[in-house]
Amino acid sequence: MSVIKIPELLSGNRRSLAKAITLVESTLDKHREQAQDILQQVLPHTGKSIRIGISGIPGVGKSTFIEAFGLHLVKQGLKTAVLAVDPSSPVHGGSILGDKTRMEMLSRENDAFIRPSPSGGALGGVAQKTRETMLLCEASGYEVIIVETVGVGQSEYEVAAMVDFFLVLMIPNAGDELQGIKKGIIELADALVINKADGESVNLAKQTQRHYRNAFHLLGSNSFWTPEVLTCSALNHDNIDSVWGMISNYRVDALKENAFHEKRDKQNIDWMQKLIHEMLEMKLRQNPDVLEQLPRQKSLVEGGQTTPYAAAKSIISLL
Amino acid sequence: MSVIKIPELLSGNRRSLAKAITLVESTLDKHREQAQDILQQVLPHTGKSIRIGISGIPGVGKSTFIEAFGLHLVKQGLKTAVLAVDPSSPVHGGSILGDKTRMEMLSRENDAFIRPSPSGGALGGVAQKTRETMLLCEASGYEVIIVETVGVGQSEYEVAAMVDFFLVLMIPNAGDELQGIKKGIIELADALVINKADGESVNLAKQTQRHYRNAFHLLGSNSFWTPEVLTCSALNHDNIDSVWGMISNYRVDALKENAFHEKRDKQNIDWMQKLIHEMLEMKLRQNPDVLEQLPRQKSLVEGGQTTPYAAAKSIISLL
Repeated sequence: MSVIKIPELLSGNRRSLAKAITLVESTLDKHREQAQDILQQVLPHTGKSIRIGISGIPGVGKSTFIEAFGLHLVKQGLKTAVLAVDPSSPVHGGSILGDKTRMEMLSRENDAFIRPSPSGGALGGVAQKTRETMLLCEASGYEVIIVETVGVGQSEYEVAAMVDFFLVLMIPNAGDELQGIKKGIIELADALVINKADGESVNLAKQTQRHYRNAFHLLGSNSFWTPEVLTCSALNHDNIDSVWGMISNYRVDALKENAFHEKRDKQNIDWMQKLIHEMLEMKLRQNPDVLEQLPRQKSLVEGGQTTPYAAAKSIISLL
Repeated sequence: MSVIKIPELLSGNRRSLAKAITLVESTLDKHREQAQDILQQVLPHTGKSIRIGISGIPGVGKSTFIEAFGLHLVKQGLKTAVLAVDPSSPVHGGSILGDKTRMEMLSRENDAFIRPSPSGGALGGVAQKTRETMLLCEASGYEVIIVETVGVGQSEYEVAAMVDFFLVLMIPNAGDELQGIKKGIIELADALVINKADGESVNLAKQTQRHYRNAFHLLGSNSFWTPEVLTCSALNHDNIDSVWGMISNYRVDALKENAFHEKRDKQNIDWMQKLIHEMLEMKLRQNPDVLEQLPRQKSLVEGGQTTPYAAAKSIISLL
């Protein structure tokens, strides 16, 4: 791989950005080192975007929404990057999530950059790669970073932990069902957006909005921000501006309360701690004695033949 | 401390039980070892109780409820232990939570055993001590273990992770407020019980019940069990039997679905993993180089001068 020129990357050169991301996504040690080196150099030029996580189950119209939302941003002169976190994506080839043909209009825009989900593998997994890609995009001048997640496994938690604002898309459905959304996801949300509020569904969407507004009030909030519930129609580009307006308001309020940078600092420190634990655990699991003893201790615990405490002690004593 | 005779402990001797718990709660290495030895010996006689976590903010009538609930159980011939998890309890002397005078009637019962909250300190903290005490109570023949938590810090999460059934007490209040309950606690609940459904509050209690039933339906459930919402008056001993009936039904259903033992196995393995991590981290933090470098790396991350990944790597490289 040819050398990446930092000034080119910083000037917004798409080829340099794409190449740097490829280094970040590589599992080769040599590439990882190069990537770390680049990240250290561009670090002072990162952090200036607003990072928005977008989640929602299949069928909610996520691609349509992100395209409409992205086009709205680009039209206002905002450079917008769309990254995807999909732990289920295949190791080789583009994942469905990241497929550019999904967002054909947006992908043709000069000020938009769409990157499919990387595959997992290295330390920190997909989340680590996405975080690093986010930094590269920021260094390249992108002002809004959208991180898209499909509702699989832990991906929503991982995305919520790396963005400033986490948005959950829903469909109009005021019934008892939760539209297949996992318990706990709602709790991560800074906003719910009921998509497909068009045609005959407008009233149902309003009703869904009321239901969730109620639920949010019942569930309360720990911070200056109580999650908002909006409706929109991505198909008709209806109310997309309100979603962006809400997020802009959030940013203003969060900056005023100093919550914006506090949240990022906390996310970074938490992530550092998580990586330390992961690296430590890797050391532990690469120990051949531990490798042999861990399954044995687990089955002793499950069989009620030893306590979790005694099992943990005996594992640690192997180091 | 005199030697504890295992057969006495197993026969339900209260003095032996109290002594064994004191060993468990001790921070002296010698006592910890004795405690572990006792636990290994009684382990085959543990696990036969139903473990119930009870949470709720001050003012909800928790003591009154637990007393009424405990008396109901004892009246049916069920040996009942009440343990408390209160991370804020003072290091010396009984905590407010564990004060027997709070549950005067119950504490006079032969088949009831009430133990105040231990103080933290050792590995695993209050949660580890409470888990071990729970095992000792089971070995001593207690059939229902109630673990009480005050809504402070992480205690609800810790208690929810060690019990079969987690119950959150609330007061009648159908308004928008969440009665000071932390976000996320509701999500841990297997049931909400609206206490103080008496006098003029009966209707409000019913209304609160409807609200939360609605919210639970909206939030959905991942398991065979959708959280129930009941009302009761602990003061008048009204509907206490329904609460016990609900928990008994849960046990029957959970056993049928094999969810009962799966949950316990998972809790034990998770706890073992958590202790391994805690012990590993202790090793890390006792390393003098790490001790010196960690604050430095943290401030570099916060200052945007290094990435969480690079900081984590440099910490691990010290080992």
